[in-house]
Amino acid sequence: MKILAIDPGTRFAGYAVMAKNGRSIQLSDYGLLKIKTTNGWAHRVGVFYDLFKEKIKEHSITDICFETAFMYKNAATFMKLGYMRGIIYLLAHEFKLQIHEYTPTTIKQAVCARGNATKEQVASMVYKYFPKLKRPLKDDVTDSIGCGICHFNISKYSKNR
Amino acid sequence: MKILAIDPGTRFAGYAVMAKNGRSIQLSDYGLLKIKTTNGWAHRVGVFYDLFKEKIKEHSITDICFETAFMYKNAATFMKLGYMRGIIYLLAHEFKLQIHEYTPTTIKQAVCARGNATKEQVASMVYKYFPKLKRPLKDDVTDSIGCGICHFNISKYSKNR
Repeated sequence: MKILAIDPGTRFAGYAVMAKNGRSIQLSDYGLLKIKTTNGWAHRVGVFYDLFKEKIKEHSITDICFETAFMYKNAATFMKLGYMRGIIYLLAHEFKLQIHEYTPTTIKQAVCARGNATKEQVASMVYKYFPKLKRPLKDDVTDSIGCGICHFNISKYSKNR
Repeated sequence: MKILAIDPGTRFAGYAVMAKNGRSIQLSDYGLLKIKTTNGWAHRVGVFYDLFKEKIKEHSITDICFETAFMYKNAATFMKLGYMRGIIYLLAHEFKLQIHEYTPTTIKQAVCARGNATKEQVASMVYKYFPKLKRPLKDDVTDSIGCGICHFNISKYSKNR
């Protein structure tokens, strides 16, 4: 199982490519996609699709993980997050990938052992897992890595795959 | 200009392929995509993508039209509408199509000359424009045809293309 964990925003999208190697988790790629807001949605969605299609092929991804989105700003923003998530589902369809979705609380619980951990605490644990990471990384990236850590920690106990 | 007008729901998606021929509007294809809700989102989004990709190629579509979505139920439903709209943007990106978005009020105004017309009144005008249509058609289909009529009626007056 090789996962692509994505934090799919409309301006920034963090991602991480991870796998389990024995008892340890490997992080073989990670990064931040910056999506120019001066372009129209067709272009923004296209850039997102193209990058992750490339990553899926390059790393022979089998599973995608992302975080459940909750509406916290306004409805229009929330729908636009839906554009990006729709693209992830399409990629899952095209490449026959399994999709795993985790709530923010589940991810924080799995990474920090505290469901109400802050973004900084998640980042701090991410740096403990992977000491060689360049830092500081943007939240979007540490969140995606956190989502991946959650996936592997949770999979041990659950049948969620 | 050959347009694909879509009413992009998560259970039903109506569509119409239309073009202007002199002063009259031609309707060369229309229909309803039924999206099985028993399948996961990857499959549902995939079915939507596949059908409209096929229609775009078959009819050499140049422009896509759809209606602006407003949140009327709950946030989760609204985000899922976003999945479908994200796919439309991706298709626009892949096939270099122009996208035109109209509010429900604009469409009703353009089709029925009344911004507060009912769905039945829109359907009734759609049947007047195209008397040979099989009826009754589901709202999703008459709405998509209405969106196309709006596009051609509005284009005469505006630079919205």
